[in-house]
Amino acid sequence: MSETNISRAQRIIARCREIAQCTEVSGETTRTFLAPAMHRVHELLGGWMKAAGMSVRVDAVGNLRGVLQGAEEKAPRLLTGSHLDTVANAGAFDGVLGVVMGVALVEELAAQNAATGGVMPYAIEVIGFSEEEGVRFAKPFLGSLALIGELRPEVLARTDANGTTVAQAIRDFGLEPEELSNAALDPAAFAYLEFHIEQGPVLESEGAALAVVDAIAGQTRMTFTFTGHANHAGTTPMGRLRQDALAAAAEWICEVERYAAATPGLVATVGKMEVPSGASNVVPGMAIATLDVRHAQDSVRHEANLHFMSAAEAACQKRGIELSTGGFDQSAVPMDRTVTALLGGSIAKSFCPPARTLTSGAGHDAMILARRVPSAMLFLRSPGGVSHHPDETVLVEDVEAALKVGVEFLARLRDDRAMLDQLVLNARTYAEAAHA
Amino acid sequence: MSETNISRAQRIIARCREIAQCTEVSGETTRTFLAPAMHRVHELLGGWMKAAGMSVRVDAVGNLRGVLQGAEEKAPRLLTGSHLDTVANAGAFDGVLGVVMGVALVEELAAQNAATGGVMPYAIEVIGFSEEEGVRFAKPFLGSLALIGELRPEVLARTDANGTTVAQAIRDFGLEPEELSNAALDPAAFAYLEFHIEQGPVLESEGAALAVVDAIAGQTRMTFTFTGHANHAGTTPMGRLRQDALAAAAEWICEVERYAAATPGLVATVGKMEVPSGASNVVPGMAIATLDVRHAQDSVRHEANLHFMSAAEAACQKRGIELSTGGFDQSAVPMDRTVTALLGGSIAKSFCPPARTLTSGAGHDAMILARRVPSAMLFLRSPGGVSHHPDETVLVEDVEAALKVGVEFLARLRDDRAMLDQLVLNARTYAEAAHA
Repeated sequence: MSETNISRAQRIIARCREIAQCTEVSGETTRTFLAPAMHRVHELLGGWMKAAGMSVRVDAVGNLRGVLQGAEEKAPRLLTGSHLDTVANAGAFDGVLGVVMGVALVEELAAQNAATGGVMPYAIEVIGFSEEEGVRFAKPFLGSLALIGELRPEVLARTDANGTTVAQAIRDFGLEPEELSNAALDPAAFAYLEFHIEQGPVLESEGAALAVVDAIAGQTRMTFTFTGHANHAGTTPMGRLRQDALAAAAEWICEVERYAAATPGLVATVGKMEVPSGASNVVPGMAIATLDVRHAQDSVRHEANLHFMSAAEAACQKRGIELSTGGFDQSAVPMDRTVTALLGGSIAKSFCPPARTLTSGAGHDAMILARRVPSAMLFLRSPGGVSHHPDETVLVEDVEAALKVGVEFLARLRDDRAMLDQLVLNARTYAEAAHA
Repeated sequence: MSETNISRAQRIIARCREIAQCTEVSGETTRTFLAPAMHRVHELLGGWMKAAGMSVRVDAVGNLRGVLQGAEEKAPRLLTGSHLDTVANAGAFDGVLGVVMGVALVEELAAQNAATGGVMPYAIEVIGFSEEEGVRFAKPFLGSLALIGELRPEVLARTDANGTTVAQAIRDFGLEPEELSNAALDPAAFAYLEFHIEQGPVLESEGAALAVVDAIAGQTRMTFTFTGHANHAGTTPMGRLRQDALAAAAEWICEVERYAAATPGLVATVGKMEVPSGASNVVPGMAIATLDVRHAQDSVRHEANLHFMSAAEAACQKRGIELSTGGFDQSAVPMDRTVTALLGGSIAKSFCPPARTLTSGAGHDAMILARRVPSAMLFLRSPGGVSHHPDETVLVEDVEAALKVGVEFLARLRDDRAMLDQLVLNARTYAEAAHA
């Protein structure tokens, strides 16, 4: 690894930390949709973009968009980026790293082209999405939804904790909600590539720096309510005279854990548990638990859900307890095979081991973009598996590795005209499917 | 069953319901330690006692005490009764039934003696304890503790929700806390017999009216805190990278239930469960649960506690989780064998089936009295297992059956001088043990 690359990786990290200073809560990093602090973020990133030769604008939903033109005016356009908003008391890398990486890649490529006299058969657009976390309006992906034309008018009427609407927040930032169509995806876009921290412990546990994402996991979130009968803990014997709602829930939780551990790629979590009016000397009359189930394949998840339902019913029946459930379901979003293969090939070129493939258990902008444009994601190891926390970090060598992979990806696209044409063709089928 | 007996049982029930009208909260029955409504209770019960030929007084802790003298002035004294206070929004029978039953037994015996010219070789004292539930001062058994001389001075300084001390509450009722020694047990007391509703579902489930109590169960109350690590439910795979505190607790709850169900007479209950900061998409980092364990034999309960501790440790170790525990322990109180045998014999005389023996899972005044005087309890079936609730009730035929058993018990004591002498001798060993 060259000293130059290390210093570039360090600069990426330093830029992320500089952006983390832009906050609406002093002493921490909290930056929700179009908070005043976002102006400074745009100023910083916009400055680096312009210095790299990009044209910069902010669209009507507040996405920062920098474009490096290709050789021709209507050249195919590669999108890259991530989101600029954060959760409350966040770290410096979730989201922001993907935007700063995009700018760095443009800088790298521009330098290479200048040195070699190479020309770019495609344009690059780096996007800093205004909203992904869903904190301010309890609705995530405002930025990317606007890009694919799915930010519905009723969303503009949603209010935050102060009663401010999305439309008013846009106006307060100096933008015009009536001009939302200017946020639309460029028709020449043929792929979206997102760099993001893993936000989980898998890569670190395997000593791996990077992973190609195969899919954003589909997700089921449910509430299970177990209704038994509250009785005196001392005078009610064990067995059929007891209808212990918590005991039923506990049996079910054990089966949820066992089944998920035995099913490759499945995660299932009972994250909340309440025993209303619970007392140490009272047999629990009610237990309310949540269930979160995720998998890259919807069929595996649906089969798991059926099993979890049966397990809960069996635990209830055994104890003469009632079960009621409710919840919602979100389908898995596979990443595009061709773009993902190109990304995997770029890793193979840069490293000895084959690319690790990972399913994203969390949602990302790529999940939204994938509805309209072939999308791929590269995960960087999260030390300690920590994210959504001030301790969130990245390793310099991992950023350097990601940068090398990104440069290779861009170079292949530049040098392999057949590949580029293929991707452009593929992108048309996405656009047609979206309009069908 | 004679019509006369049925009408007497009905009168007992009517008297309990009349006393239930004495309340500090209109529209329900709530009567805590020395509430003003207790004056009317003393008036009603005192009136019935006097009409039955008893002398009546209220001791310094507010216990109502009616004595029917025996043939001799220093005759051995049988105690019977229960408590007059209630929980909030209570039923009409918990406690009060035992006092009203005591008065009814004196009426029965006095009538028999008058008819047959029989004489009483022992006195009967009916006690309405002022406090058992622990509602007003978060300290139960104030009445019976005063009787055995164990109401410690510091208890008199405890305050209720309004800042009133126990001593002041006594004064407000027109009594003198300085005169507490007048509450002491009469030295001639040789046994205590308490009638009480079961407050559980066992007798009803077996179609039985009555049970002899063999012991007040010993009790362990503990808190188990499982500390794992809160992680993203979507990005943290199952297995060793997860430290799910709730999953560990659930495994332990299942083992608590299984072990208790497999151990005769044991009840074990996890009544409270909290997942602090729990969220549906977060692997639980902490789970806090209570454990309530009861059994008639302390050795069985202690063995169970060790098993539950091991089970929790195993569930934690498997998941890399920390366990911390705390709690307290209360020994079992066996009822006196001789008095209990006499009670059992009295049931056998009155019914075909042998006496059902039951361990009381709840505490009672008999548990306190048993420290100083041979004690026994008779449980009456609780329809629906309901108690501490306005729907709490008793069946007329069960009250009639209990009355017959009580009359037989008193008659045996009257007619079997050797038995009475034996009981008086036994009582001395209790008094000596208490002073040792």
